[in-house]
Amino acid sequence: MKCTDEFDVRDVDECCINIDPIQVGGRLTADAMKAVIAYGDGYSVCDQCRKPFRLDYIKSPPIDRFHRDLAAFVNMDVARVVPGARRGFQAVTDTYVGKGDPVLITALSHYTEVLAIEGRGGAIREIPKSAGNIITADAAAETIEAVIREFGRPPVLLFLDHYDYQYGNCHPVAEIIGAARQYDIPVLYNGAYTVGIMEVDGKSLGADFVVGSGHKSMAAPAPSGILAATAERAAEVFRTTGIKTDVTGRTFGIKEVGMMGCTLMGVTLMGMMASFPHVRERVKRWDKELSNGNLVVEALKAIDGTVIRSEYPRKHTLTRVDTINSFDRVAKTHKKRGYFFSSALKERGIAGIIPGATKVWKFNTYGMTRIQAEYVAATFREIAEENGLPVSI
Amino acid sequence: MKCTDEFDVRDVDECCINIDPIQVGGRLTADAMKAVIAYGDGYSVCDQCRKPFRLDYIKSPPIDRFHRDLAAFVNMDVARVVPGARRGFQAVTDTYVGKGDPVLITALSHYTEVLAIEGRGGAIREIPKSAGNIITADAAAETIEAVIREFGRPPVLLFLDHYDYQYGNCHPVAEIIGAARQYDIPVLYNGAYTVGIMEVDGKSLGADFVVGSGHKSMAAPAPSGILAATAERAAEVFRTTGIKTDVTGRTFGIKEVGMMGCTLMGVTLMGMMASFPHVRERVKRWDKELSNGNLVVEALKAIDGTVIRSEYPRKHTLTRVDTINSFDRVAKTHKKRGYFFSSALKERGIAGIIPGATKVWKFNTYGMTRIQAEYVAATFREIAEENGLPVSI
Repeated sequence: MKCTDEFDVRDVDECCINIDPIQVGGRLTADAMKAVIAYGDGYSVCDQCRKPFRLDYIKSPPIDRFHRDLAAFVNMDVARVVPGARRGFQAVTDTYVGKGDPVLITALSHYTEVLAIEGRGGAIREIPKSAGNIITADAAAETIEAVIREFGRPPVLLFLDHYDYQYGNCHPVAEIIGAARQYDIPVLYNGAYTVGIMEVDGKSLGADFVVGSGHKSMAAPAPSGILAATAERAAEVFRTTGIKTDVTGRTFGIKEVGMMGCTLMGVTLMGMMASFPHVRERVKRWDKELSNGNLVVEALKAIDGTVIRSEYPRKHTLTRVDTINSFDRVAKTHKKRGYFFSSALKERGIAGIIPGATKVWKFNTYGMTRIQAEYVAATFREIAEENGLPVSI
Repeated sequence: MKCTDEFDVRDVDECCINIDPIQVGGRLTADAMKAVIAYGDGYSVCDQCRKPFRLDYIKSPPIDRFHRDLAAFVNMDVARVVPGARRGFQAVTDTYVGKGDPVLITALSHYTEVLAIEGRGGAIREIPKSAGNIITADAAAETIEAVIREFGRPPVLLFLDHYDYQYGNCHPVAEIIGAARQYDIPVLYNGAYTVGIMEVDGKSLGADFVVGSGHKSMAAPAPSGILAATAERAAEVFRTTGIKTDVTGRTFGIKEVGMMGCTLMGVTLMGMMASFPHVRERVKRWDKELSNGNLVVEALKAIDGTVIRSEYPRKHTLTRVDTINSFDRVAKTHKKRGYFFSSALKERGIAGIIPGATKVWKFNTYGMTRIQAEYVAATFREIAEENGLPVSI
């Protein structure tokens, strides 16, 4: 169905069970869809913008309260909305990282963290992962020591993904942050895969910054996200402009340099706000989500030759699976080659797997009903059986 | 009417003639509204993202072609979408401005340009404006010379707003860029008030960069915008990542550092794309828009004591008007005080003026029909007459 002359309507989430690893947490709620329709126009949130003319002061719609609610949601002192988690990373690196400064990431860090540091000329060092693809506090402490030996000083910043994008593995962030604390290293907690789908308590983890993604995990349109900070760090990362221009003597009020002034002036923010009451509730149902995820993982494990590459049992609904010795073996002789798999799934109403992928791939069961999870589990087994792969009971 | 439990539906553009100075160019087209509904979900444009996994390579929806169309639209070689014009400024300052480097803006530059430079620690110098609030090429040349005397070298970058946000005055950008060319200074053409509402030819102006705002002037949701560059500058501002991590040896393909990877992964981009065929047509009707604007300006000028602070006749639909000796005189004795004016407009179906503003204020007639312009003109006169202000014929 055409949406405009130039492109089609998108209906994957209406017509299919979508298991795309990055899309499932960002599907809009019904309230967000209403907000998107009502606030689609450009600067739609600026109708009631009054002095001091800053997004987080707008009372109608209640953007000011939403900012306070967001900070409370992740238990931090101050929060701002940003055009994607990556822009939160950028604001933090802009504040703390200078050319040549050592910055720690992990062996499983997201590429946007790398770009944020590269943009400031920081020297990136990785904390190695364990054989089981976990970042440990010991590895973090050793890497900090290695940085001190190499640079004569500790890293200026540490990026930590609570659950990584590659395996969806859970890393012991509280302990790692504890190790970083010994050296007074500010820590950015990357909650792209947590904030909005499970409960996150930034202060009890000891984080200086909590970053979340609206379009990845908060049922919001793209690009959107949050950057939250402790009061102490907020004064730094949300510093206001200090410029007085030389000819006109202009000053620019309380605009925040790192935020580039206002950030999300319309549909993205309103979608995020509309979903928020639902998001605040859904994080309490994470156990149910995990149970659905594990159901699907069990089905895949039952297919002979299939290996779950993520930690097991799963602590996240995002899972990396290796089907080199199962579905990929089928692909070698199937007339559709590797496409047989995504094609068989699509025929059964399951979308989100890259067409042709049969070796190592990822999926995410977040947001399914129990019945949908059972159906997905049964479908994987069914496709295996139809193609002659042994499936245990 | 409630949109969700927490906030109301926004219907200002459905119920009123909106003359808000920043909102009128960013109202969605009907096609954009359809796209917003179809592509509201988070990462909605990523369904068909394949190697090399970058937004501007996606073929379905035709995001790759849109990028080429955008570059052609402003007659530049390469274009990217960004989360607002300000993020275009930021990418350019990140590339060219180091601590202490002199950067030129003008006495009428937008605050987001200042923040972008402040973020990099640049030394901001302003080109003075003329008594008539115009930036001239002579003033630009003199300021460049002054910078050379002060810093021992020319500015590393010049920001130029074709039409400024304060007066909507037209500045002779081609001549100013000609002056900057003498010193090899890269020039960023800020088209927040031009790209999408009038024709812009970046190369014939001599610009190195053209920045436009989706939510301000391209009938797109916020935050959105474009950053276009010449081929030479594109290689600098859109440089790809050069990092290889130390432990895992990871590299990150052709992700662009200044863009922070992908930028607009959903509703903002699709709204922009859906409006684009209409935007490309509407820029050809700028004369009609100006004629409507001047009709309203004439009506205001006819009210005794009212002064048009913008250049006259108007070359833009955004106008700054001084009613200290007309509507503000009424406000002094009116029982509603300054609120009488916005209130009288609102009663007559005209919105977008800050409540209480009767001294110096701005309005924008962009996007009106002729009949609406005539109605707005008549309404200003009517409110004046009702309140005893003399109005010439």
